[in-house]
Amino acid sequence: MSVVDGLFDRASDFFRGLQGDICAALARVDGRSQFGEDAWTREGGGGGVARVLEGGAVLEKGGVNWSRVEGELSPEFAKQLPGDGTSFRATGVSLVLHPRSPRVPTTHANFRCLEKGGKVWFGGGADLTPFYLERDDAAAFHRAFAEACDRHRPLGDYDRFKAWCDEYFFLPHRGETRGVGGIFFDYLGAPAHEPEDVFAFVRDVGAAFVRAYVPIVERRRDEAYGDAERRWQLQRRGRYVEFNLLYDRGTTFGLKTGGRIESILMSLPPEVRWDYDVQAAPGSREAELIAVLKAPVDWLGRNG
Amino acid sequence: MSVVDGLFDRASDFFRGLQGDICAALARVDGRSQFGEDAWTREGGGGGVARVLEGGAVLEKGGVNWSRVEGELSPEFAKQLPGDGTSFRATGVSLVLHPRSPRVPTTHANFRCLEKGGKVWFGGGADLTPFYLERDDAAAFHRAFAEACDRHRPLGDYDRFKAWCDEYFFLPHRGETRGVGGIFFDYLGAPAHEPEDVFAFVRDVGAAFVRAYVPIVERRRDEAYGDAERRWQLQRRGRYVEFNLLYDRGTTFGLKTGGRIESILMSLPPEVRWDYDVQAAPGSREAELIAVLKAPVDWLGRNG
Repeated sequence: MSVVDGLFDRASDFFRGLQGDICAALARVDGRSQFGEDAWTREGGGGGVARVLEGGAVLEKGGVNWSRVEGELSPEFAKQLPGDGTSFRATGVSLVLHPRSPRVPTTHANFRCLEKGGKVWFGGGADLTPFYLERDDAAAFHRAFAEACDRHRPLGDYDRFKAWCDEYFFLPHRGETRGVGGIFFDYLGAPAHEPEDVFAFVRDVGAAFVRAYVPIVERRRDEAYGDAERRWQLQRRGRYVEFNLLYDRGTTFGLKTGGRIESILMSLPPEVRWDYDVQAAPGSREAELIAVLKAPVDWLGRNG
Repeated sequence: MSVVDGLFDRASDFFRGLQGDICAALARVDGRSQFGEDAWTREGGGGGVARVLEGGAVLEKGGVNWSRVEGELSPEFAKQLPGDGTSFRATGVSLVLHPRSPRVPTTHANFRCLEKGGKVWFGGGADLTPFYLERDDAAAFHRAFAEACDRHRPLGDYDRFKAWCDEYFFLPHRGETRGVGGIFFDYLGAPAHEPEDVFAFVRDVGAAFVRAYVPIVERRRDEAYGDAERRWQLQRRGRYVEFNLLYDRGTTFGLKTGGRIESILMSLPPEVRWDYDVQAAPGSREAELIAVLKAPVDWLGRNG
């Protein structure tokens, strides 16, 4: 028996529970709509539960997916991952929330555990995509995850995971990050780290999500906005689609290896616009956001 | 002097003229809006003219782009194309039209000429993406291009180009073609064909576009529709975005090699929806469309 024995199963159970906790917290803050539940099975082995809320008071569309799958990778793809052989198991929770109001940021989080050839590793992260910059919101979101990271030093390396997030959620053709970032990490496991320690870290950052995001929703949900702000939101959602379909490895990997389409693409926004050559007026609130997307900010001022 | 001397220049001039002809015909059928004009230059050499119409009576958004660029390809990419060396020139016209009414199909066309290492070749095509199936429209669209092909046999091989179109405009993750097809061809040049003959063929199919598409617009533009049809249109436009960002080689190549972003992405629809797990009701007009996308039709019945 290896030290990771049972870890995958416990991780899977934790992610399933986290899905429920997050959906409950979001339904409470939404106040109007509940998450539906769609169980699905995967032909190659395993399955999942897609939970989707549409037409909420706060959430125009939100999806929180849990899955636990197993199967065989192509030899070519298997070589790119840790562990021997081609058999793998993967479990995780993944969410994208598209609020109705342009005053409330979009967010994404994902926590996952993979097992292959006796190796177990974790990956995940969370990031915030506002339509209008609120520096306090960005800093608070980062702080919630930095605190969870700090409790697990040196494993929980906020500075590294913050930089990794800015690098990952980047649209090269626009020269912009997707939003104001957060944290992103992958391949955390042996030999660099004790897998049990990584699991403890992932539990902690997973639990931090509701604490990081829900207060921002509560602070912004009743702020007024008009048609011009809504239009800007829909145009910015276009960037979200561009990132997910052009660059997001999770999305393209899922689509190209027979994942469940509706669970993968529930990340896409409900309503989106592409208008020709949209430019933010100099000095505007829109331009203020773009400036930050073009030059990521050290929100917590810990590296100044 | 090679036989292709001057061909690239003449092709470029033809495409520039075709852009003007198409825009004039579309502005006439729209009746309310005109195409704007944005000239742009490319850092690596050359440039183009983007012509965009937004907010028309018939066209919610339409873009007709002409370009003529030159530069150096990466050695890796250069190997995948005909002709020696890494220097290339490319010129062409490319259009996508997104009508406001779900009763009027979306369409795309592109005609291009490439030159590399003394080789010149042409590619292009046109395809129709209806939201509701009208068999007469699909057949008429195909017929216009089949007639142009037939005038240039054996080079103008409609059956081959029709099959190529169905194969190219296919979304593997949905198991659907993008629409009811049309024609698609590439790498038409020496030694299989006399380049001048190919140019004559491309002129003919290019000129066929207005004849193929405008009568459909005129036939459908005044048909009534309601919110449910509009919603279906926006959802189907989501598939258009999925194809363009996930699979279209022109789009991904352009974005990844420093093309002009706004000219490349002017193909994306103005307004789009992604709703969770949309299913067409059995026996509905929506289901009728999907059936044809899952099993391409021989519209002209020439191979029965």
